Amino acid sequence: MPVAGRRRGSPDTRGEILDAARREFSVRGFDGTSMRAVAREADVDPALVHHYFSGKDDLFLAAMELPFDPRAMLPPVLRGPRDGTGERLLRAVLGLWDDPDLRPRLLTVLRSALASDDTAHLLRDGLLRLVIEQIATLPGVVDPQRRGALVGSQVIGLIIARHVLGLEPLASMTAHELAAVTGPTLDRYLYGDDLR
Amino acid sequence: MPVAGRRRGSPDTRGEILDAARREFSVRGFDGTSMRAVAREADVDPALVHHYFSGKDDLFLAAMELPFDPRAMLPPVLRGPRDGTGERLLRAVLGLWDDPDLRPRLLTVLRSALASDDTAHLLRDGLLRLVIEQIATLPGVVDPQRRGALVGSQVIGLIIARHVLGLEPLASMTAHELAAVTGPTLDRYLYGDDLR
Repeated sequence: MPVAGRRRGSPDTRGEILDAARREFSVRGFDGTSMRAVAREADVDPALVHHYFSGKDDLFLAAMELPFDPRAMLPPVLRGPRDGTGERLLRAVLGLWDDPDLRPRLLTVLRSALASDDTAHLLRDGLLRLVIEQIATLPGVVDPQRRGALVGSQVIGLIIARHVLGLEPLASMTAHELAAVTGPTLDRYLYGDDLR
Repeated sequence: MPVAGRRRGSPDTRGEILDAARREFSVRGFDGTSMRAVAREADVDPALVHHYFSGKDDLFLAAMELPFDPRAMLPPVLRGPRDGTGERLLRAVLGLWDDPDLRPRLLTVLRSALASDDTAHLLRDGLLRLVIEQIATLPGVVDPQRRGALVGSQVIGLIIARHVLGLEPLASMTAHELAAVTGPTLDRYLYGDDLR
């Protein structure tokens, strides 16, 4: 009984769910996609989708094959003294991109996300939202959506300058050097009184 | 004598030179392309290329159909009090992008530039270099390549957040509001003593 067998979870059920999720996300966007619709598209029981993925965020990160989870990566980085938060955040993000095993995958996601409005909005709603939600947990950050978006603009700009454009000297500086120079920008975006 | 006629400049000679320039730039990059090679590719006399375009920078801007020339746009913006340079620069750049007649063309150039290393490097060598050269003319800017690259990273990040990702509230703020909030970042990148 292949159908019943698949419903219980055949070896490639997880992969079939991810294929279905990629199709749903790309057609309906992040907000328009549900775990139930992915189950229907994959022809599996919804409980099976929940067995493999604890929620839509998990499903999205796995479907995009993102090699990091901002919900796990950011809290330890954002903890610590308020001064220097930007530098710590940039060291972590630029450090990911400096990993030769991760960079090709990150570049593929970034390039596909920038290629059309649909994929760009998918990155925004599926990934950047998770980053901004983490920033919203920081004590003393007023208006986290605006401040998180400003942080995102500088981080994305640095990644593109460094890894897509190859703009010198940003492309050759170490992650630590670049984080030291641009960290104060992020500290101001997060906490600056002149932004209120 | 169609060949001789074309050499003197037929109605579409300029367009044929631009087609040839696009092919040369895309295959050989900015640095690898010469006016002479474009003339050869277009099958016209090199003097004719120089008749239509005063130099390779002109030819590049026309071939990319860029609706602005940083060599004309930036000097009046960069002149004026040192404080506020970043805000004036951002108002000008974001203002271009807010023009509904220009935005589609700018988006096409940006998206194509980010799509591959070759096109990204073309944007860097053909366009960003002109911007950094203008910044290098500012009195008191030490190490203009580094400072210009940092400025570029924030400007590109804002454009992508606002016009590609549609990241709120950056997408809905006016150009003046956004320039006021992020201008101090650019002032520090241009003139900050803590960057030396």
